[in-house]
Amino acid sequence: VHISELSADMAELGNYRHFMQKEIHEQPRALTDTLLTAVAQEHVQPEWFGFDAAEVLGKVNAVTFLACGTSFHAAKVATYWLEAIAGIPARAEIASEYRYRTSVPNPDALIVTISQSGETADTLAALNHAKALGQDKTLTICNVPESALTRASRLKFLTRAGPEIGVASTKAFTTQLAGLFLLTLVLAKLRGRLSVEQEAAYLAELRSLPNKVQQVLALEPQVEAWSQRFANKHHALFLGRGVHYPIALEGALKLKEISYIHAEAYPAGELKHGPLALVDEDMPVITIAPNDQLIEKLKSNMQEVRARGGELYVFADGDVHIEESAFVHVIRLPGGSNGALSPILHTVTLQMLSYHAALQKGTDVDKPRNLAKSVTVE
Amino acid sequence: VHISELSADMAELGNYRHFMQKEIHEQPRALTDTLLTAVAQEHVQPEWFGFDAAEVLGKVNAVTFLACGTSFHAAKVATYWLEAIAGIPARAEIASEYRYRTSVPNPDALIVTISQSGETADTLAALNHAKALGQDKTLTICNVPESALTRASRLKFLTRAGPEIGVASTKAFTTQLAGLFLLTLVLAKLRGRLSVEQEAAYLAELRSLPNKVQQVLALEPQVEAWSQRFANKHHALFLGRGVHYPIALEGALKLKEISYIHAEAYPAGELKHGPLALVDEDMPVITIAPNDQLIEKLKSNMQEVRARGGELYVFADGDVHIEESAFVHVIRLPGGSNGALSPILHTVTLQMLSYHAALQKGTDVDKPRNLAKSVTVE
Repeated sequence: VHISELSADMAELGNYRHFMQKEIHEQPRALTDTLLTAVAQEHVQPEWFGFDAAEVLGKVNAVTFLACGTSFHAAKVATYWLEAIAGIPARAEIASEYRYRTSVPNPDALIVTISQSGETADTLAALNHAKALGQDKTLTICNVPESALTRASRLKFLTRAGPEIGVASTKAFTTQLAGLFLLTLVLAKLRGRLSVEQEAAYLAELRSLPNKVQQVLALEPQVEAWSQRFANKHHALFLGRGVHYPIALEGALKLKEISYIHAEAYPAGELKHGPLALVDEDMPVITIAPNDQLIEKLKSNMQEVRARGGELYVFADGDVHIEESAFVHVIRLPGGSNGALSPILHTVTLQMLSYHAALQKGTDVDKPRNLAKSVTVE
Repeated sequence: VHISELSADMAELGNYRHFMQKEIHEQPRALTDTLLTAVAQEHVQPEWFGFDAAEVLGKVNAVTFLACGTSFHAAKVATYWLEAIAGIPARAEIASEYRYRTSVPNPDALIVTISQSGETADTLAALNHAKALGQDKTLTICNVPESALTRASRLKFLTRAGPEIGVASTKAFTTQLAGLFLLTLVLAKLRGRLSVEQEAAYLAELRSLPNKVQQVLALEPQVEAWSQRFANKHHALFLGRGVHYPIALEGALKLKEISYIHAEAYPAGELKHGPLALVDEDMPVITIAPNDQLIEKLKSNMQEVRARGGELYVFADGDVHIEESAFVHVIRLPGGSNGALSPILHTVTLQMLSYHAALQKGTDVDKPRNLAKSVTVE
């Protein structure tokens, strides 16, 4: 078990009311630190993942993620990125499921574990299970240098989030996503799927990410105003499509964890296959509306919600046209379409929403009931 | 669009109050009809899926399922079966997600669509998308012979559920599972993973399935007694592990659809990673407790729920030892461990639970608000 050395930080709330709020606002710094080595360079480098990473990553033909909770959501985002950008088959498995089921091992798959602490019991056991099945190309994405997972993995990428005190993960998640995007670029390059122009464009996107996150954080007063409407609700539905569906999952989990509001996420296309029956005026529907090729489909899903009396809270990219009304509230992210890193920006708005909803409810934000920071037992 | 020819059946409720109840009770007959050809034979036959099925199925190296809603849950069950029994990599994709994301096609994957009506718009579009990517080894599992999906697929397996009137799918789902189990056996045999003894044992299990379902249906009075405790609840958590996790998903969906109770399913190992924060006396926890190698882990998850004041409703196999108490209710399925087909038996108990919960609430069971029987538009 890893012994935390963070006690000195416990008192350093500064101007923030809770560690969770502090950690949400630290994200530009955490992302800057996590991306420091990468964005200083002109080209994508396998060595970001270890000195012999090119050799290991050059041989893999698939990626299998093993993770729990919030880290599993990061894995799910990465499966969309990897298939679309690197052209490599990717799957995300819940560690507690994978370790106990009879699966079909692929010795040429890259096994990627993700964990803030690096000590998550199920994830560590899943990694050992994968290795016992002859899958030895392993990589961990982790926030603690000398953790069990870093010691047990061949390659590693350390997120530089710094100590995370709040039980509900925030900066650990977004820095995991940053690391996973770097992994996507490395695999894309090794597989000859990255043109010189794309490489330069993605690196430029990464360089501007901390600043964009800072702009999203400036939306906090608007998000806080929304949260007052949530405190008396017992349910919420989060909708996303594509790479933003796992962000909807993460937004719902965050709201659950700290406000105890029963929030659930769906890929918006599944609405008609069941969850629409739940929608009425007591079930607010939070929608992630990036300006991508699915925006028109998403608008159609939103109309279904409105037709059933549901109240919509929409986080939209700046150039998405959505008509506001008494029951359709819109907060616009700065700028137009946010490209490949849009999931990271949309995450930040949902973190602020759950934080302020919990404040309204008066729950113990940093130490929600029933939960521990690191799940080091099964 | 397929024009339903079922109007003649609309009046034939017989002794049942609703079509959903009738269709739940028809399952022994529906399963008998669906399995008729297969169980009459001594050996597993690829031809159950079409005259040239051996040729197509003999060449595949992976299985990708495309489906929506309840059919997606059937697909998820099948991924567990296929990897464990046939040793073939399998993944289940939500059709509305798959059709719009950039995925990595595998020309040697079997593309399996599942749909009661065979007209589900997203599933049909997903199939066409898969074919456009060069994936032409296609199979559909469907309840309507001349549907769009059967016409568009190279191989087919027709469930013999008969017309399903209730919007919430019951017998269509369990007959889909029966068909998917046959597919598992066929692929296992073609891949040399099925011994003569195993083949005989699985076929014997299939032969006894309708009778076992009949015995589970006899539990209805006990399930009905539970449902009275549910009618005033606004939330429910469904827990399962392994191949029973998709059954927990289906149980939660059923309860949502017809009782409008906000039910959500989790693989039990994920409890500590967030949803445990929701658990209190107002959040009943329904647990699927088959007598498999995970039962001790599940009991530990159940203790966590109890320690937080949660009330447990446990559907256990007959030989599982669980102590009952004022807040731990247990209904035992007949017999001991139910083997590979256990997910089908556990489904039936959850169908009855949602049906009777809806009856208590007085909702329109057969035509829940906001939902249509077949989602033939996007």
